[in-house]
Amino acid sequence: MMKKLIACSAGLLMAGAASLAMAQVSPEDQIKFRKAGYSYMSWNMGKLKAQVIDGSVAYDQKQVEAAANAIAAIANSGMGALYGPGTEKSVGNQKTRVKPEFFTQKDEVAKVAIAFNQAANELAKVAAGGDKAAIAKAFGDVGKSCKGCHDQFRMD
Amino acid sequence: MMKKLIACSAGLLMAGAASLAMAQVSPEDQIKFRKAGYSYMSWNMGKLKAQVIDGSVAYDQKQVEAAANAIAAIANSGMGALYGPGTEKSVGNQKTRVKPEFFTQKDEVAKVAIAFNQAANELAKVAAGGDKAAIAKAFGDVGKSCKGCHDQFRMD
Repeated sequence: MMKKLIACSAGLLMAGAASLAMAQVSPEDQIKFRKAGYSYMSWNMGKLKAQVIDGSVAYDQKQVEAAANAIAAIANSGMGALYGPGTEKSVGNQKTRVKPEFFTQKDEVAKVAIAFNQAANELAKVAAGGDKAAIAKAFGDVGKSCKGCHDQFRMD
Repeated sequence: MMKKLIACSAGLLMAGAASLAMAQVSPEDQIKFRKAGYSYMSWNMGKLKAQVIDGSVAYDQKQVEAAANAIAAIANSGMGALYGPGTEKSVGNQKTRVKPEFFTQKDEVAKVAIAFNQAANELAKVAAGGDKAAIAKAFGDVGKSCKGCHDQFRMD
């Protein structure tokens, strides 16, 4: 099932430009929606960090599972469709920090996107199992894949 | 499993105010994150509308499933924690249209929140099954539950 999800996500990423033209989401809204997805994932990463890494919030299995599921489901939802033509630069009220390389280095983008999806799916899988050490490891791997993409494709 | 998820979500909603104090998410960020969650769900509702209701985009089982999963996972991720003290009004750069009643009518809020979670979980369940008529029905029910909350608790 994980393999299927990953293949699906990578496929959606690639199919992005084609499908969004038909769905008619404006470039401004595409930027808004992709930022919303990343933002919502970051909140859930913060919850996991507090409960699994820092211990600043008591570990709660249901919350940890729900947070990991939200991250994985967003990761698997085809965000590539939100990088269509016209979204290379800030538009209207929507600012973007995406680098131009994101739109030219397709193979590199696919690599980081697949790595991210794999890490997010692994996190959801181990979160359901409740093994805190495994969750901490998977959380770290997701964080690394976030950072990997930011370093390559996001401006400071 | 659906029952468990619903109970979990309702529980998280109730526990919201308590848990967020410890997680130390600023009121401004709480508003930012909750708006991000709703925004990302709305993009996925748009994809479902295009593929399942309007037919303006070709039906794609994997995309429909992924969109429904994203909506359900966000719905189940404890957004109630993003309505803590200080989030009743716009803060800093974050504007909110939440009505004051949201913070006083706890029973009503719980009712619409539970209805929303149930509808979102049902949508994810039928999306996995691939029955377009069932997905259209479940999509409509989610839309109604969104509207139900907006009518009661969101300013125009």
